Amino acid sequence: MRILGIDPGLRTLGWGVIDVDGPRMVHVANGLCPSEGDTLGARLLSIFEQLGTVLRTHAPDAASIEQTFVNKDGAGTLKLGQARGVALLALARAGLSIGEYAPNTVKKTVVGVGHADKVQVMHMVRLQLPGCNPAGPDAADALALAICHAHHGFNRMRPAGAVA
Amino acid sequence: MRILGIDPGLRTLGWGVIDVDGPRMVHVANGLCPSEGDTLGARLLSIFEQLGTVLRTHAPDAASIEQTFVNKDGAGTLKLGQARGVALLALARAGLSIGEYAPNTVKKTVVGVGHADKVQVMHMVRLQLPGCNPAGPDAADALALAICHAHHGFNRMRPAGAVA
Repeated sequence: MRILGIDPGLRTLGWGVIDVDGPRMVHVANGLCPSEGDTLGARLLSIFEQLGTVLRTHAPDAASIEQTFVNKDGAGTLKLGQARGVALLALARAGLSIGEYAPNTVKKTVVGVGHADKVQVMHMVRLQLPGCNPAGPDAADALALAICHAHHGFNRMRPAGAVA
Repeated sequence: MRILGIDPGLRTLGWGVIDVDGPRMVHVANGLCPSEGDTLGARLLSIFEQLGTVLRTHAPDAASIEQTFVNKDGAGTLKLGQARGVALLALARAGLSIGEYAPNTVKKTVVGVGHADKVQVMHMVRLQLPGCNPAGPDAADALALAICHAHHGFNRMRPAGAVA
């Protein structure tokens, strides 16, 4: 089972791919998609195309994305929403089921506490995925989302009535 | 010159197409793209595909979209942002330049006052585009956005230094 984690953002989208075989997790790849262009449309198109290349290259079986934390910064929420919409579209077009996790759930799963900072997340991602070198904090967050889906996703996706 | 106006929304996206030849405006088509599906990804994909059909069918030369009004409803802003991101992506992929207009600018242009309600917008759209029968208020708003771009867009898009 190959899982793609996505940390959406309008400036940079982080992504990370892991393979999961029972309790075993292996790092496959990770990276950043910086948005490029003079207009909002061009920037969204740039993210969409880069994410399309990631999907074609690594052919994941499932995806995991951060549940967006909505705060009082309406303009920031709108920008993030636009990038997140484009990422969700790319995943849905690829036919992937999508798990969504709150930042606290991801940190609790990967670090053990819900209020961990980026340095701790980066450290624990490296520990749990030996040999992995995240391209940046957004890529480490994306790998953490993939790890979180490996732990929680399969229970959620098990059909109702199936035996544990 | 054919202009596509878009009123984005996660439940329903309104669209309207007009042809502009100097001061003359002619209604071409309008409609609604209701989002369908059980998941957010499926709903965004449904909007994207319906908008793709509109773009292929009517082949506009330019597009016009509402500048989103950001308020204190963070969850609503996020939903609208996701739908708006997908709409902008579809327009950018079609190679269209995109004009963005605040709701007040659209109303001032089409109705004459910035605080006009939906009934007034619908009425003035019908008056200015004879024979047009908007599929609903969102489609009327989309046609109003196209009319607004016909009035303002070309000045904005004229290259710097060009003579008026």
